[in-house]
Amino acid sequence: MTKRILVVGGVAGGASAAARVRRIDEHAEVIMFERGPHVSFSNCSLPYHLSGIVENSESLVLMNPETFKKRFNIEARVNSEVIQINREKKTISVKDVTSDKMYEEAYDKLVLSPGASPIRPNQIEGITNSNVFTVRNVIDIEQLNAYVKNRNIKDVAVIGGGFIGVEVAENLRLANYNVSLVEFANQIMTPFDYDMAQILHKEMVDHGVNLVVNDGLARIGNGFIETQSGKTIDAQAVVLAIGVRPETKLAEEAGLAIGETGAIKVDGNYLTNDPDIYAVGDAIEVYHRLLHKPTRLALAGPAQKQARAAADHMYGIPSKNPGVIGSSSVHLFDLNVASTGLNARTAEEAGFSYNSVYILPGDKVGLMPNSHVMYFKLVYETPTGKILGAQAIGKGNIDKRIDVIATMISMNGTLEDLKDLELTYSPMLGTAKDVVNHAALVALNQLSGTYREVKVSEVRELVENNAFIIDAREKNEYKAGHLKNAVNIPLSEFRDRLGEIPNDQPVYIHCRSGQRSYNMVMALQNLGYSNVVNISGSYLGINLYEYFNDLVTNRPKIVTEYNFK
Amino acid sequence: MTKRILVVGGVAGGASAAARVRRIDEHAEVIMFERGPHVSFSNCSLPYHLSGIVENSESLVLMNPETFKKRFNIEARVNSEVIQINREKKTISVKDVTSDKMYEEAYDKLVLSPGASPIRPNQIEGITNSNVFTVRNVIDIEQLNAYVKNRNIKDVAVIGGGFIGVEVAENLRLANYNVSLVEFANQIMTPFDYDMAQILHKEMVDHGVNLVVNDGLARIGNGFIETQSGKTIDAQAVVLAIGVRPETKLAEEAGLAIGETGAIKVDGNYLTNDPDIYAVGDAIEVYHRLLHKPTRLALAGPAQKQARAAADHMYGIPSKNPGVIGSSSVHLFDLNVASTGLNARTAEEAGFSYNSVYILPGDKVGLMPNSHVMYFKLVYETPTGKILGAQAIGKGNIDKRIDVIATMISMNGTLEDLKDLELTYSPMLGTAKDVVNHAALVALNQLSGTYREVKVSEVRELVENNAFIIDAREKNEYKAGHLKNAVNIPLSEFRDRLGEIPNDQPVYIHCRSGQRSYNMVMALQNLGYSNVVNISGSYLGINLYEYFNDLVTNRPKIVTEYNFK
Repeated sequence: MTKRILVVGGVAGGASAAARVRRIDEHAEVIMFERGPHVSFSNCSLPYHLSGIVENSESLVLMNPETFKKRFNIEARVNSEVIQINREKKTISVKDVTSDKMYEEAYDKLVLSPGASPIRPNQIEGITNSNVFTVRNVIDIEQLNAYVKNRNIKDVAVIGGGFIGVEVAENLRLANYNVSLVEFANQIMTPFDYDMAQILHKEMVDHGVNLVVNDGLARIGNGFIETQSGKTIDAQAVVLAIGVRPETKLAEEAGLAIGETGAIKVDGNYLTNDPDIYAVGDAIEVYHRLLHKPTRLALAGPAQKQARAAADHMYGIPSKNPGVIGSSSVHLFDLNVASTGLNARTAEEAGFSYNSVYILPGDKVGLMPNSHVMYFKLVYETPTGKILGAQAIGKGNIDKRIDVIATMISMNGTLEDLKDLELTYSPMLGTAKDVVNHAALVALNQLSGTYREVKVSEVRELVENNAFIIDAREKNEYKAGHLKNAVNIPLSEFRDRLGEIPNDQPVYIHCRSGQRSYNMVMALQNLGYSNVVNISGSYLGINLYEYFNDLVTNRPKIVTEYNFK
Repeated sequence: MTKRILVVGGVAGGASAAARVRRIDEHAEVIMFERGPHVSFSNCSLPYHLSGIVENSESLVLMNPETFKKRFNIEARVNSEVIQINREKKTISVKDVTSDKMYEEAYDKLVLSPGASPIRPNQIEGITNSNVFTVRNVIDIEQLNAYVKNRNIKDVAVIGGGFIGVEVAENLRLANYNVSLVEFANQIMTPFDYDMAQILHKEMVDHGVNLVVNDGLARIGNGFIETQSGKTIDAQAVVLAIGVRPETKLAEEAGLAIGETGAIKVDGNYLTNDPDIYAVGDAIEVYHRLLHKPTRLALAGPAQKQARAAADHMYGIPSKNPGVIGSSSVHLFDLNVASTGLNARTAEEAGFSYNSVYILPGDKVGLMPNSHVMYFKLVYETPTGKILGAQAIGKGNIDKRIDVIATMISMNGTLEDLKDLELTYSPMLGTAKDVVNHAALVALNQLSGTYREVKVSEVRELVENNAFIIDAREKNEYKAGHLKNAVNIPLSEFRDRLGEIPNDQPVYIHCRSGQRSYNMVMALQNLGYSNVVNISGSYLGINLYEYFNDLVTNRPKIVTEYNFK
């Protein structure tokens, strides 16, 4: 008997589910309903239309209904809003939004992939103005793009520093608008810890974005916005990117279970509490394999996997469900930015016993062209050494290292495993000891108590309390700029200058990137110094962490000051 | 009591061992002996001096003896050849090669890291000419570079298509020499299977390298070489890169055990059969964790790990020894090239039951700038689905995918694990379904018998035997160039043209990259076709495999023809 499978939503999850059903069952009748005029567009690529990186907005649409029909014999009904699920009858009520005509369609199996909608805080004055935009689909981005271009807009405010806000801000900046990015929290991009986010803040500011953190949108006026702290920011257009809300209305009204996160609740096979209704994508909650609880994860990769698993389940094909860890990346001006698993903040919040490593090695052999510093943070469980997450930022191939860590997390890897990984190397592409091996070695040293460390976030207090801090770099490096109060005792001289190093108080040591300080810490301990502490992140890390402050001499001039701290 | 630790060899393994000893033990006396004038140079970067990518050869030397002394209190004795180990006395005999003076030094522990020397087949006429070079150290590369530059050399022959040969050929070509690369086997770069190596052959030829495979060096004449097949090739300079031989003389003469591979035999802690003598690096044999037998692996990363483990063992610090899998990468003209584990050939030779996947997806979202096709081959064990190895070639971030596979191999991952990996994605950096997920899905389809495939290497026979081959691309794609004999039935039309598809003979299907053919194969099977076969690699793969031959219409013009096949 021919199966009739209806799919609500025609983007990542919906289109993938429909296509998978077709591959399994050439005879099934598959109809996909999409409220908007486009199915199967690249939502992750939307912001790139603003800069012209994706010049033609039509190219954002990967496949039109005609192609769906011809290639896959799937009917993609655009401009068709599903407004009700009639579970007893196993039908859905559909409204043709062009004609307002209503009709019903029967299903054997129904897949819900309605996505998540941008949050609009309706109480805010001016929020419904015609110059206030959100970015969810091709129409949205075309409208925003047309508005700023055709009206000769100069200043745009982007509200919210998550992925969408950051990408929209970047692409508008690349198109030479004056862009303000307003973020309520003390940092943008919550997958990153504060120390890593500072690098992103610097990148935004260095590229002329007016970054405003610790502040929210209070009011939208005529040509400006006002923040909660009372600041007025020029803005003839406003983009709201403060978060998304799972589209659960249809499911809720049909009596389908909603989970504790506010998203549609599904079982391991992406079945709702109705055995004929599946749900996938941004509207559902998924199981976090590290946090052991439901979470929401609005990412395209997981949506595709869920869609495949749901389609398979309809046909009795089993799938393992390993849960999610949350891996993501973004390109931000000159930087690549990626993370996976837990950061220190989420590990802390979840009550993990954990520690972290922050290292700043080269991404390639130093004498090769395009060798750059990479900023890498690894979070692991103590005392087990189980890998919990990582964050990486840099100009080069940093997502590769995060993908390796994501793989290790999925395979329940520990620091010992990570240390031993035998990864590819050539001078143009990496270093003989890859950064992930390096991070594991540092972490194992921490774990074994081989030496102790303080974090870059603790350095200000050390300086202010006149701690004994050794700068182990060479004299010329020290002269070019150094931590206030730090004493310059180069690694190459310290054996002859032991008399200058006290043994009756803590001694904190840093160099440029951590290699020389590591050697000095080990040597001093060996020589009987009982209270030697390495400064994690070293000078490069301190400099970045305190970039907008004043903890070093010869601080580089900041292009745009912003209201940080 | 102060330990006296002597190290023979001052490059990757030796320098790492010495530095590690120092970090563990500030009191140890550490002396490193190096026959040449440099310690701690970047051997992997040597070829890049020829193109000027590394302009200054001095920058190849990462640390000089003075810095070793000042930073690490390690004595690095250059120009010091260790010519004998006196195991009973626990001394070594050293010759100062500048003065020919001989002396002895006593050790508590000895680390051998003598490396491997380029093979010179002395029976070949002209092999000792002054225009014949090998590339092992900074002096070698300086001499070669000076020779070709100062003598106005036009034509250089590189003998041997391994890593060194290929990198030397590339860098000489970048410096505008006429370069011939002569390889005895039917392909260069043995970590790659023949189908993948064809892509490398194309890259060499496209960049004007005169590539000669299936041929060896017979004789070096005045301004030319002669090959074993009788070919004469202009060459005023010759670089020998036909392989390396572990430097075992010192160990052998001291009665240390040599393994079945001809390299120094060590235990899991890199101890030789003398409990006070360790050996690390290119001179030793290591345990291959997939082949379950000793192997040789001349790579910098493993050498560093071995050095660390050896130093740790001296001080009672245990290390796990997971064996090696062999991960490597190289940048070749416009391509990045990487591999890990076993390829199909080595799996076959080792008697594995295995299969492979060959896919050609985009490395980024197609509408993003710098999106390129990636060539990816995955080798796995049947029926277990255990991952055995992978090869990747492309312009973009391909080593990332190989590092993920290397991680999976190390963690004993299977195709099921690989399919589920949750990796980073943003349109500028990747695709929502990463190539490794994609490869796992294809492999699982193979493994489950969901559909059958033929390899690109089998297509010629199909064409010659007039098999029924469907080209599932659109008409315009077919017209631009297609497989001889292939029938054009686009995926978008086949449901209306089933009458043209026979059900009484095998039907082979390809499209451009495999996506459309996969859908058509599944549909036809569903419709009752019993003998439908997908052509792995599709048109892109066939085109590359048969690049130097004549299996498609409108074949692109080959810049340089070479004596292939």
